[in-house]
Amino acid sequence: MSRYWNERVQRLEPYVPGEQPKDRRYIKLNTNENPYPPSSRAIDAIKQAADKRLRLYPDPNADELRTTCAKHFGLRPDQVFVGNGSDEVLAFSFMSFFSPENPVAFADITYSFYKVYANLCQLQPKIVPLDADFQLPVEAFCEPNGGVVIPNPNAPTGRGIPLSSVRKILEANPDQVVIVDEAYIDFGGESVIPLIHDYPNLLAVRTLSKYSSLAGIRVGFALGHKELIEGLNRLKNSFNSYTIDRLALVGAKAAIEDDAYYRDLSQRIMDTRERTIEQLERIGFHVIPSQANFIFITHREAPAETLFHELRKHGILVRYFNQPRISDYLRVTIGTDEEMEQFVAVLKQII
Amino acid sequence: MSRYWNERVQRLEPYVPGEQPKDRRYIKLNTNENPYPPSSRAIDAIKQAADKRLRLYPDPNADELRTTCAKHFGLRPDQVFVGNGSDEVLAFSFMSFFSPENPVAFADITYSFYKVYANLCQLQPKIVPLDADFQLPVEAFCEPNGGVVIPNPNAPTGRGIPLSSVRKILEANPDQVVIVDEAYIDFGGESVIPLIHDYPNLLAVRTLSKYSSLAGIRVGFALGHKELIEGLNRLKNSFNSYTIDRLALVGAKAAIEDDAYYRDLSQRIMDTRERTIEQLERIGFHVIPSQANFIFITHREAPAETLFHELRKHGILVRYFNQPRISDYLRVTIGTDEEMEQFVAVLKQII
Repeated sequence: MSRYWNERVQRLEPYVPGEQPKDRRYIKLNTNENPYPPSSRAIDAIKQAADKRLRLYPDPNADELRTTCAKHFGLRPDQVFVGNGSDEVLAFSFMSFFSPENPVAFADITYSFYKVYANLCQLQPKIVPLDADFQLPVEAFCEPNGGVVIPNPNAPTGRGIPLSSVRKILEANPDQVVIVDEAYIDFGGESVIPLIHDYPNLLAVRTLSKYSSLAGIRVGFALGHKELIEGLNRLKNSFNSYTIDRLALVGAKAAIEDDAYYRDLSQRIMDTRERTIEQLERIGFHVIPSQANFIFITHREAPAETLFHELRKHGILVRYFNQPRISDYLRVTIGTDEEMEQFVAVLKQII
Repeated sequence: MSRYWNERVQRLEPYVPGEQPKDRRYIKLNTNENPYPPSSRAIDAIKQAADKRLRLYPDPNADELRTTCAKHFGLRPDQVFVGNGSDEVLAFSFMSFFSPENPVAFADITYSFYKVYANLCQLQPKIVPLDADFQLPVEAFCEPNGGVVIPNPNAPTGRGIPLSSVRKILEANPDQVVIVDEAYIDFGGESVIPLIHDYPNLLAVRTLSKYSSLAGIRVGFALGHKELIEGLNRLKNSFNSYTIDRLALVGAKAAIEDDAYYRDLSQRIMDTRERTIEQLERIGFHVIPSQANFIFITHREAPAETLFHELRKHGILVRYFNQPRISDYLRVTIGTDEEMEQFVAVLKQII
């Protein structure tokens, strides 16, 4: 604590990201990165942009990238907002669309940054408990509230929800913004983006950090009605005009244009996921059905916290959340086949 | 306006950056970029980092870059905060250290983003008028207030203030954070960084966009007492864990390590500035004394707005602010010798 901190900073409870260790080489299954390299077209585009032009500011409006992104999703450029990772996009969204007098609804077990944003913006969260098997209670999100945030699929559980449920929530909240965080949508889920044409209150949030294997360049999107996008632009232009650097702009554009490459990676990751689930179930794990590039697992005997520490000793990082209801679970990113085989082999040793 | 915008977004008056035109080639003297290329070591470092490692998140704490930066400035790493450009650093600072009940003081003619940040954070600004010749009235900043923001040298005037004045302001405000925005300090000003050891309320803000010729990669710093830095980290980690991408991290580090290259560029820019001032004075311009990589000029006959439009037609972009007290002035970035000669030649034609 410092006498120079204002009331906001004193009150904050910052997000704690998964560790990015530097002490040794790990099999890194803790931050949901893509185990495969990014598109070579993205890397080439970045290398080609790394020259004397770096003396110049980037395009603050990211026009080319927005146009490419819009085309890819069947939208107009004014329906696309570009941010420094989906976390920045979410922060701006909380700052733009929700108000202290109207509680914003999100699940008790979900991306833990939502609570942090609510706190940052002095919002009252309305915490909606998931069912016993971590299913989203759709009806609870249809009650009056001041906004909704749902990841589809959810993190850290990996569970997806059908479009029909999202539709129901959108229709029950016509005067509130419903954010659907699609960070993990490309591993088997069904995107809400086609619904943007019908629902002016829908904001879909995307990232290049998972499916596009570009966590290192920090690009995320919000997709929605142009009024919502304009609101985000007002906020961003009152905060930082140039949030995306010249290298990220060109890398992101090239990545989106190379979707065939990524669709193939995604299929490989989903195949590995299914094989891993089978193997884990054979050694006594219960695995929540996953539409993401990670799985949420619990063992009928071995405590999750012990497994977490033992795996770490064996050079494998996974994510453990010491929180009510999920302290028996581990969140495990799907790596390559080789990495997951080693993961299962080490688990067999430990258990 | 949209029914989905909250009260904050409705109230915002976003910053308008200088244009980044795409329609034709201009001599670009409008956004204070460095006319010379960045360090080749920075470019090489970026090219070498552009590979499959981009699938991984960057270090959220920017440890290596902070260590390099701290060493360069004679500080400890816990006295350094890294942000996505100095604009983000300033936004976080306004969000962390100032409060609505205590007006934050800044000049009437200064970086126009300060007013935008104040608005974003619902702060009451205490606007201090500069003297008739744009000098900072130091005494006015020594009265009771809720924080102080001073750019040294000031923008858009280019006028610097001596360390003795900053010291006076720091001592008069022991319980408030005094931000000294040193975006342009390396073109002839005197940095406050050595004062950090004596004043826990001092926060110096730096950018790589001007002196380091890296506007394209978005890196800025805050330097100050570790309590201030911790406050900024709390805010940042409640907003976006990974604000600096892997490419910017390595490019920034290499640039700081290649300071000899940049000192030389800075000397060239200062020499060009003095030559340009001489030539402008000869054709009837009044030039405010500048310690920056730009000059603030007015002509005894030709209206600034006319000059702005005429220069544009001739392929030269400068910055014109249609604001009280400075609507007779143009802000002109110092380019290369060739660019400035052409600038003066075109002015001679126009006048």
